[in-house]
Amino acid sequence: MPEAWEKPYRDLLARVREARLLSSCMSLLEWDERTYMPHNGAAHRAEQLGLLAGMVHQKGTDPRIGELLDRSEEALRGMSADAAEVACVREVRRAYDRSRKLPQELVEEIARTRTLAESAWAGARAKSDFPAFRPWLEKIVGLKRREAEILAAGGDLYDALLDDYEPGETSAGLITLFAALRDELVPLVAAIQGSGRRPDTALLQRDFPVDRQERFGRAAAAAIGFDFQAGRLDVTTHPFCDRVGPGDTRITTRFDARLFGMALFGILHEAGHGLYEQGLPGEHFGSPLGSYVSMGIHESQSRLWENLVGRSEGFWRHFYPQAQATFPESLTGVSPADFFFAINDCRPSFIRVEADEATYNLHIIVRFELERALIAGELAPADVPGAWNERFRKYLWLTPPDDAHGCLQDVHWSCGLLGYFPTYTLGNLYASQLFERARKDLPNLQDGFARGEFGALKEWLGRNVYRHGARYRAVELVERVTGQPRSHRALMEHLRGKFGPLFGIR
Amino acid sequence: MPEAWEKPYRDLLARVREARLLSSCMSLLEWDERTYMPHNGAAHRAEQLGLLAGMVHQKGTDPRIGELLDRSEEALRGMSADAAEVACVREVRRAYDRSRKLPQELVEEIARTRTLAESAWAGARAKSDFPAFRPWLEKIVGLKRREAEILAAGGDLYDALLDDYEPGETSAGLITLFAALRDELVPLVAAIQGSGRRPDTALLQRDFPVDRQERFGRAAAAAIGFDFQAGRLDVTTHPFCDRVGPGDTRITTRFDARLFGMALFGILHEAGHGLYEQGLPGEHFGSPLGSYVSMGIHESQSRLWENLVGRSEGFWRHFYPQAQATFPESLTGVSPADFFFAINDCRPSFIRVEADEATYNLHIIVRFELERALIAGELAPADVPGAWNERFRKYLWLTPPDDAHGCLQDVHWSCGLLGYFPTYTLGNLYASQLFERARKDLPNLQDGFARGEFGALKEWLGRNVYRHGARYRAVELVERVTGQPRSHRALMEHLRGKFGPLFGIR
Repeated sequence: MPEAWEKPYRDLLARVREARLLSSCMSLLEWDERTYMPHNGAAHRAEQLGLLAGMVHQKGTDPRIGELLDRSEEALRGMSADAAEVACVREVRRAYDRSRKLPQELVEEIARTRTLAESAWAGARAKSDFPAFRPWLEKIVGLKRREAEILAAGGDLYDALLDDYEPGETSAGLITLFAALRDELVPLVAAIQGSGRRPDTALLQRDFPVDRQERFGRAAAAAIGFDFQAGRLDVTTHPFCDRVGPGDTRITTRFDARLFGMALFGILHEAGHGLYEQGLPGEHFGSPLGSYVSMGIHESQSRLWENLVGRSEGFWRHFYPQAQATFPESLTGVSPADFFFAINDCRPSFIRVEADEATYNLHIIVRFELERALIAGELAPADVPGAWNERFRKYLWLTPPDDAHGCLQDVHWSCGLLGYFPTYTLGNLYASQLFERARKDLPNLQDGFARGEFGALKEWLGRNVYRHGARYRAVELVERVTGQPRSHRALMEHLRGKFGPLFGIR
Repeated sequence: MPEAWEKPYRDLLARVREARLLSSCMSLLEWDERTYMPHNGAAHRAEQLGLLAGMVHQKGTDPRIGELLDRSEEALRGMSADAAEVACVREVRRAYDRSRKLPQELVEEIARTRTLAESAWAGARAKSDFPAFRPWLEKIVGLKRREAEILAAGGDLYDALLDDYEPGETSAGLITLFAALRDELVPLVAAIQGSGRRPDTALLQRDFPVDRQERFGRAAAAAIGFDFQAGRLDVTTHPFCDRVGPGDTRITTRFDARLFGMALFGILHEAGHGLYEQGLPGEHFGSPLGSYVSMGIHESQSRLWENLVGRSEGFWRHFYPQAQATFPESLTGVSPADFFFAINDCRPSFIRVEADEATYNLHIIVRFELERALIAGELAPADVPGAWNERFRKYLWLTPPDDAHGCLQDVHWSCGLLGYFPTYTLGNLYASQLFERARKDLPNLQDGFARGEFGALKEWLGRNVYRHGARYRAVELVERVTGQPRSHRALMEHLRGKFGPLFGIR
């Protein structure tokens, strides 16, 4: 006998699911655009994505959803705020109200523009030609400011964009959090720089043939639990993870035959995202209960596997002998300790995606400040290179040699992702907090890693994170799982615990 | 100053184009399904395609299109029946009236079912397990019979399906045409079998490493004019060509490291389709003026490049030295004449896609007869293996060793393509007729091929075929270009002209 609330709730979910099913078609088109699409296909792809974005928007803003939301909220009124159904309706409401505010023509124009702008960005980055990208950046920033103005309705513009990636998050909260982090991070990085100890990273820049790197990376992804029957690994310029739908989660990487690590840690990173997507309850596809919490929580999953597992001592007790067997010409005679130190170097560098666990967050703070200024209208897109280099000197003590190593390095702004960067540092913080808890719950984690066993951690994450979908907001989820408030403490403890001994500081 | 007819006509085309743009998203999803989709993604892909098919159907049957069609027809009434606009409206009318008859739930169910059935077929073929495929075949045949009943409205069921692939074609016309062809073909094949001469085809079954085959095939596709900036080549089980949109035409092939030819001729075949798609006027995308005429004309383009060019003497004067340089361990010491005879063998065999130019058409006649009986309800899907083998013995004097080499070999029925097979033989006939004309217009064609020059033929096809889109129906196009009625004569002359000297018959 169905309860009274079931009918509107089920009808609501069916409609929301259909919009999500349609948007999952966009996921495949976007994946293809970044992996296999031929060069001349870009203009048509932009039209396809523009059309689909408009149709998804139309489906997602159908007034019938509004009616079913009203009826569902009414019907669920007696139920605990903690109930899955209540959380589900809360998140549908949030997305619906947000979408309803945006005119369809703006949604379609952003979709079309980002495809063209991303293509322009790729060309501009290859030639380090910021002027070629500038008009596209101007267009994107203009469109996103329009979006923010509509959404903010008088409130903070940046917060309106941030909320899309990190529901409930605010600039004010991040400014406080990041300042606290920076205040401890900068002295730590300075101490490391001043320590006099340096790993021999040249040993990572020998011959590492791409086909063997790929084999090694696939094996590592499979070992931590990425299911290749329900996913793929492909090559791209700017790696990402894309879930096409249940049973189909795709990760990407890039290879450099003279560099060990970039591809491998990239694969572990994307596989971390992939494990989360593969672990979300497929039966709830299209509902918030089958979706990720936020980009920050998503990023915590990639960071956890890339850094807290993939750069851990236990992981390499298992994998280093295999790495030596795979790349004998480059790793024979390299001691495990020297190797471990090399992959755990810490020093300011130009490229965010190649940065170490500590300085990475300083890269994010640079971008966070710049994009807030762009959206506030305090920084003109034309002035980005100068502002970038100035901030970079301030936080990382380096001046980029060109814009390809500076403000052109990331794809994000070209495809309209403004307000997204802070979620990377949130991911680092959440990852450290979650991992700290996992280590308490699973005491012999590193010994398991050393035996090539990663299932216990994956299972723990499934139980504590994946299975909830978006039932809890990020801050709440972290608190529920760890019993601690959101903070930079666990990350700083992790960094001091790792870099202290390696660099001989305390 | 716009003419009076322009407004409804432009509005009509804009709407038709949008439906076509949406269906082009399906093209990419289908391409991916057959190339890169992970195993567990099939169920979700079926849902995506079902949703999109329904939405395309909805857009394509919008009553507003009916109104604009009425107004356009009214406005164009004074114009010559030969005018591009009149032809365009004629084809839009045809597709609209056809689609309007089909209920959306049927369209969606067929789309969902074909994805699942194709996956089941692939598994069944791999294990030669017809019983595993049988329920899917029953479901597909049932759905297509429902479709045919709705479309035929009392007329011939098979014709109703055929018309989707070959507008204006009828069973009656094909029965006459195929009988005339068969009456000349069977004696020719018998004479070849009785000739006593046999090429040494074992020389094509040596070591041909896949990576080198791929390089060779790519070079050949590029040489005949396939544009890799506007296209791709990938690997699949059942090769196909798929145009995602202007600037994005994808071909596929499959490789066997112990077989020269399958991949290469497959690539030339698909590249022939690809040249047609790349040559269609991109500015007319979405309108019949930017679309192919029929599957028969499409197939004529693939056959022309695969057989009339790719198995010609001039082609191999250019490519054989390259083939020897690419595969020295297998082709050194093999004379050009022996090689040429080997790639132009003619003998009954089990697999259609590996059949020679002559017996290929007998494979088609087997399928044509069976699918007519399936659709007429005279043959139960469960009885297909027996009926297949019986017909196969009758026309090709062979009994398939198992269903993988028999009725399970083709993907078509699994994905709902009933009424499609005859277009392959139509393609062979049209290709021969068009090529006969091209040879008259371009006298030194084989000498050009021998110099690696294929541009003149591509340009001739562009001028005579590609640029017209679907302005003329197939039979009319062939008559306009060749000045001859549609017939089996040119194909038979070609076959006698080639096989006569090779096998020493006349």
